[in-house]
Amino acid sequence: MGEFDLLRRMRERLPPPGPRVPLGSGDDAAIAVPGGATATSVDALVDGVHFRREWSSAKQIGAKALAVALSDLAAMGAEPGEAYVVLGVPTDLDEDGCMELLDGMARVAEETGTTLAGGDVTRAPALTLAVTVVGHAERPEDFVTRSGARPGDALVVTGELGGAASGLLLLERSSPSDNDSPPVGSMSDGLIARQVEPRPRLAAGRALAEAGATAMIDLSDGLGGDASHLAEASGVGLRIDAAALPLAPGVTEVAATAGRDPLSTAVSGGEDYELLAALPPERLAPATTAVEKQSGVGLTRIGEIVAGEGVEIRLPGGGLLEPTGFDQLG
Amino acid sequence: MGEFDLLRRMRERLPPPGPRVPLGSGDDAAIAVPGGATATSVDALVDGVHFRREWSSAKQIGAKALAVALSDLAAMGAEPGEAYVVLGVPTDLDEDGCMELLDGMARVAEETGTTLAGGDVTRAPALTLAVTVVGHAERPEDFVTRSGARPGDALVVTGELGGAASGLLLLERSSPSDNDSPPVGSMSDGLIARQVEPRPRLAAGRALAEAGATAMIDLSDGLGGDASHLAEASGVGLRIDAAALPLAPGVTEVAATAGRDPLSTAVSGGEDYELLAALPPERLAPATTAVEKQSGVGLTRIGEIVAGEGVEIRLPGGGLLEPTGFDQLG
Repeated sequence: MGEFDLLRRMRERLPPPGPRVPLGSGDDAAIAVPGGATATSVDALVDGVHFRREWSSAKQIGAKALAVALSDLAAMGAEPGEAYVVLGVPTDLDEDGCMELLDGMARVAEETGTTLAGGDVTRAPALTLAVTVVGHAERPEDFVTRSGARPGDALVVTGELGGAASGLLLLERSSPSDNDSPPVGSMSDGLIARQVEPRPRLAAGRALAEAGATAMIDLSDGLGGDASHLAEASGVGLRIDAAALPLAPGVTEVAATAGRDPLSTAVSGGEDYELLAALPPERLAPATTAVEKQSGVGLTRIGEIVAGEGVEIRLPGGGLLEPTGFDQLG
Repeated sequence: MGEFDLLRRMRERLPPPGPRVPLGSGDDAAIAVPGGATATSVDALVDGVHFRREWSSAKQIGAKALAVALSDLAAMGAEPGEAYVVLGVPTDLDEDGCMELLDGMARVAEETGTTLAGGDVTRAPALTLAVTVVGHAERPEDFVTRSGARPGDALVVTGELGGAASGLLLLERSSPSDNDSPPVGSMSDGLIARQVEPRPRLAAGRALAEAGATAMIDLSDGLGGDASHLAEASGVGLRIDAAALPLAPGVTEVAATAGRDPLSTAVSGGEDYELLAALPPERLAPATTAVEKQSGVGLTRIGEIVAGEGVEIRLPGGGLLEPTGFDQLG
């Protein structure tokens, strides 16, 4: 299989470019006509570091690579535009496997209105995907950064937490080397899907931006770590009420089986790709309505922004929860 | 060394972003304010596939990764804007090595007016660099694609050919496993520099675009192969006069020592990163003047565009030169 043959075959399979892209893949560069401002982010996934091929189909890996990259655009409140993909192909992934990867990406691209506008394919010792995504807004100040949170703002999170980490626990327990595999039910399927088939909260991110979010970040490393990034960038402190955290269904049961605390799992486990945002308190009600209406996802107030620094997670009993390292991929 | 610590150290070393980039690296995404249209390209370099760490310093590898990506923007006639970098770091490259890579990139960024606006760092089994570059123009039609060449156009090339391939021959002959190393003189140094320290022809590309180039491509795979891409994209034939090819100084000598034909070396060897362009004949003189004035590089007419298809390279004796595969990296 030559590099050019594979590139040609992949290009033929690509969905047609969107109206913003007068020239897609195949020339020296793709041509786009942006709106007034762009938000651009790049993410890499490497086999054995960010995913395991025995846990995910090629289609799921391709979909996850694009979804994870787009999650950063969701956290800016951007309208998704174009994606550019580098695929590093090991010798044990054949041409059909590459096409499946592309199909997974194309599915997420279609779901989100993203144009797969260009890419490069190369040999590599391990399957590697590097995805650059470009999002749009009318003006630079329409994007929501991590740095605008102010004391008094409410702290909110979209959707549910701990699902991806619980899915990882289930996958680790059901690996072929472990004969003590638990039966996998529909709740478990949902948790595993959160791990291997994440989706970016693009509509929720845009709704939060329009509703006046002052700062936003996506939860890739875990609530504890990402909350710290937001606090540091904004120069504020975050106070989180652990009892308010919206745990995904099944997290409590899976954590218990694994001998873990469910709240710690939700706080320290990564890859939920929910959005954490700060909002002036008077914007909370309209934001909640807008997020639910535009994205079908719930918005939960989990705490507040305070003067100072750092992240404090208060337990129902009165103590503090320490975000600890969690055995996550990536 | 944690991923966050390295990212932080790298960000502190980055040159400040240009005026088009109100928010650089460090948030969920970088924010840019593009001109009217963008050209975006992505390129990956993998150790053992596109370069060898024993032949290049970390600084040279970083510089080459950005230069090679920018070469695609040169071939569009774009003004360079932003670069986004994925760095896959193997266990035997330490933090200082990563900083040297970054220094090499920063040098090319400064030389070309490119902002290093974002990136991602991950572990990887082999040193991997994926670089996305964004170039700008007022309007989409200001960019020069591969597909506009018309019969009757003149075919021109910038600079000199065969240098990078000859540099590779020199590196292969001087590898530690070969005791028959030739003495390396200043001419050899120049050829090796073409291989390990290429620079994009950005100013020449913009001059050619402004002078009315109808089609353009950069020579990464070799004149023979890249000429075929241009011919196919434009739906035309290319007739090249082999005697007119501007060989880099030393190519004849190095090829002879290696038992190769110098013209074949120039035609089949890749990585010269010169520009091949089609121009209406009446634009040839002003384009030559503009390219020399704006970039200090010569422009050579090497053939013409004809109706039909394919690439014909005519030898001085009257025969045809077949572009054959050359043992190039990448």
